[in-house]
Amino acid sequence: MDSVNRVFASARRRFFMEMWTIMSLIVQKFGGTSVADAKLIFNVANIITRAYQEGNDVVVVVSAQGNMTDELIEKANEINTSGSKREMDVLMASGEQISIALLAMAIEKLGFPVTSLLGWQAGVMTGSNYGSAMITRIDPGRIKKELDKKNIVIVAGFQGLSQYYDVTTLGRGGSDTSAVGIAVALSADLCQIYTDVEGVYTADPRFIKNAKKLESISYDEMLELATLGAKVLNNRSVEIAKKHKVELEVLSSFVEVPGTIVKEDANMEKMLISGVAKDNNVAKIAITNIPDAQGWAFRIFSKLSARDINIDTILQSAEHDGKRDIFFTVNEDKLADAMEALEKYCESVEGVGLSYDKNVSKISIVGAGMQTHAGVAAKMFEALFTANIDIQMIATSEIKVSVIVSQDSADEAVQTVHDAFFSAMD
Amino acid sequence: MDSVNRVFASARRRFFMEMWTIMSLIVQKFGGTSVADAKLIFNVANIITRAYQEGNDVVVVVSAQGNMTDELIEKANEINTSGSKREMDVLMASGEQISIALLAMAIEKLGFPVTSLLGWQAGVMTGSNYGSAMITRIDPGRIKKELDKKNIVIVAGFQGLSQYYDVTTLGRGGSDTSAVGIAVALSADLCQIYTDVEGVYTADPRFIKNAKKLESISYDEMLELATLGAKVLNNRSVEIAKKHKVELEVLSSFVEVPGTIVKEDANMEKMLISGVAKDNNVAKIAITNIPDAQGWAFRIFSKLSARDINIDTILQSAEHDGKRDIFFTVNEDKLADAMEALEKYCESVEGVGLSYDKNVSKISIVGAGMQTHAGVAAKMFEALFTANIDIQMIATSEIKVSVIVSQDSADEAVQTVHDAFFSAMD
Repeated sequence: MDSVNRVFASARRRFFMEMWTIMSLIVQKFGGTSVADAKLIFNVANIITRAYQEGNDVVVVVSAQGNMTDELIEKANEINTSGSKREMDVLMASGEQISIALLAMAIEKLGFPVTSLLGWQAGVMTGSNYGSAMITRIDPGRIKKELDKKNIVIVAGFQGLSQYYDVTTLGRGGSDTSAVGIAVALSADLCQIYTDVEGVYTADPRFIKNAKKLESISYDEMLELATLGAKVLNNRSVEIAKKHKVELEVLSSFVEVPGTIVKEDANMEKMLISGVAKDNNVAKIAITNIPDAQGWAFRIFSKLSARDINIDTILQSAEHDGKRDIFFTVNEDKLADAMEALEKYCESVEGVGLSYDKNVSKISIVGAGMQTHAGVAAKMFEALFTANIDIQMIATSEIKVSVIVSQDSADEAVQTVHDAFFSAMD
Repeated sequence: MDSVNRVFASARRRFFMEMWTIMSLIVQKFGGTSVADAKLIFNVANIITRAYQEGNDVVVVVSAQGNMTDELIEKANEINTSGSKREMDVLMASGEQISIALLAMAIEKLGFPVTSLLGWQAGVMTGSNYGSAMITRIDPGRIKKELDKKNIVIVAGFQGLSQYYDVTTLGRGGSDTSAVGIAVALSADLCQIYTDVEGVYTADPRFIKNAKKLESISYDEMLELATLGAKVLNNRSVEIAKKHKVELEVLSSFVEVPGTIVKEDANMEKMLISGVAKDNNVAKIAITNIPDAQGWAFRIFSKLSARDINIDTILQSAEHDGKRDIFFTVNEDKLADAMEALEKYCESVEGVGLSYDKNVSKISIVGAGMQTHAGVAAKMFEALFTANIDIQMIATSEIKVSVIVSQDSADEAVQTVHDAFFSAMD
């Protein structure tokens, strides 16, 4: 090692020492794009072994390689497009099995002790709802045993074992949940979620000028952002982290800079809101001229709920001629299902109209700051009004304001709202 | 169903009724070429569901898809050409995981109840010798439970679980071993090994005219043929079948005709020998002018044995000037290793020569008939002599005669010997 390298290594060491002085157990999670090929796998292996060299116990949760999931689904579809979910889970779980073995081999190549564990070996127990099983408990005995042997432990994310000893998968974003769940079971000091973005931003940095990376954010804000289509972290994983107070860090596996810390009391006194999010996966349904609005709303919504369709923003018109209109939004991919359920009801009553609009987006601002600062919603509405953007519907919660706007004006709406709150910050 | 189909179905049913009148539990094994793509998987699914429809309990053992094993090895080699065997086993085991799920989905598509089980779910317990683990016991509890539910059971071959709850693989041909082991554990009535050939032949039908399919063959003969490069059945699987008297049937997954039955007292009074086999994976090593042959032989062979190199045919020359020559054969893929071990020894003694010859083949005849019929070996030698083929070395056992000949003359030698024993049969 020449002297320049030595200086660099020492500086890097100091940087990590500061971060992890009192840390001893870190869970790191890497998604499919981070391990898509051999070169990327070595990149990840370097991140892992660096943390290990700093004296930490390291448990890694990894997803299937980028293209593997699609390849497996294609194989299944060639055979049976409606195969049982049980067999789909057996098939899909092979994806992480491949990536844990490859990642372990890369770490072996770098000269570090490592062992890979499948979901069932890692003690990830779940319910039997194949394809989207919930973690019921994690028995970390085997992981602890491997850590005691000073092994780096690589765990297959996204998969678990049912009480009937069948392989299950946790559904989309499941590897985040595996990672946070394992961090809870091990009382880890930090759970790092490595992704292809550098952290959580005030808005989507691909589209919004001046979008700024947050140093920290609270669990509740992160939950609202995840729900609202920010797609950085899986929702369930944030819920588990909040419940058990596990500190999360969202950071990039490609750029070596600190990410965003997600914790209970994130430092945000300086900011009214922490982010602006856009969700295009929204459709608006309108039911008009309802004679008995209250009874209808109950029947309609229970019917939709029976089909597992969540209703989001709701707006009820004032009475006109003894009749009312109801507007509400659903996830766009549930629209067809929702319309099918509603058509029967609406046809049965003379004069009732049913229509939908897919050309809508939900724009939301999120921030714990609004609990103590008045006028946040007003500032948002004013910005949109000034930009001539029509607000179709409004929904609010303690730390969130969402509006439904036309999808054509959505990007402009996000930029406008973001400018209103963040323009003065840079 | 039209009447022609009905007649055909009834004939087919009768055929199977005859075969399986008193049968109730069948284990079927399908290799990687039999499940290489979606179309082939449905072909296999049809074979399986037909046996199930005839009223049998059916347990199926399946290998990884044809090209999958190579794809996985390539993935590993891109990362680490000397990764640990433990991680290689985790990686390779994903191959069967994919094929059991796909085969189960095909059977679901055909409308039959089915469940897939990984090696550890099927109770296949092994030692910890990753890459070529031995089955230590099979606990068929889960398989039996699934059979009780009238499910067709698809088991991942080639893989098992060590006592430390790690995934292991059984090495080359391991799915045969899985199948026979499971047949033993379940006291199955028949274990069918489906391959791409129609059964066991008197010689390799791709090269030898008049090669004839055997109706039946004894375990011992099958063992000799497997050892001798006939490559139809994995050796260990035949040993297990012999020990526990499980009847095997080797048959084709592509052509619907009866195969070859492997059992204790196969009916072979009509035949002196059951087959002629050729093995090109042989190299001859010559050590010449050894002063103290007996001590040398001991040292050399123990040295080779320490490296796990098996010595096959051995020939020691008569003494000349107080010295002797030793010739022996090894597997050609162990040749480099053997030569490395021998060079040190041979260099240390003046005048001792060391050389090897890869241009040799082993031609063997196998038959329980030779135990009671004299002159079998003589008939083989005569045929080779008449054809002007030089016999370099000879080895015999109770039911086998092997000769080492030049590889250039090997195909002619097999045809000549086969003609001598089988020409009059057709």
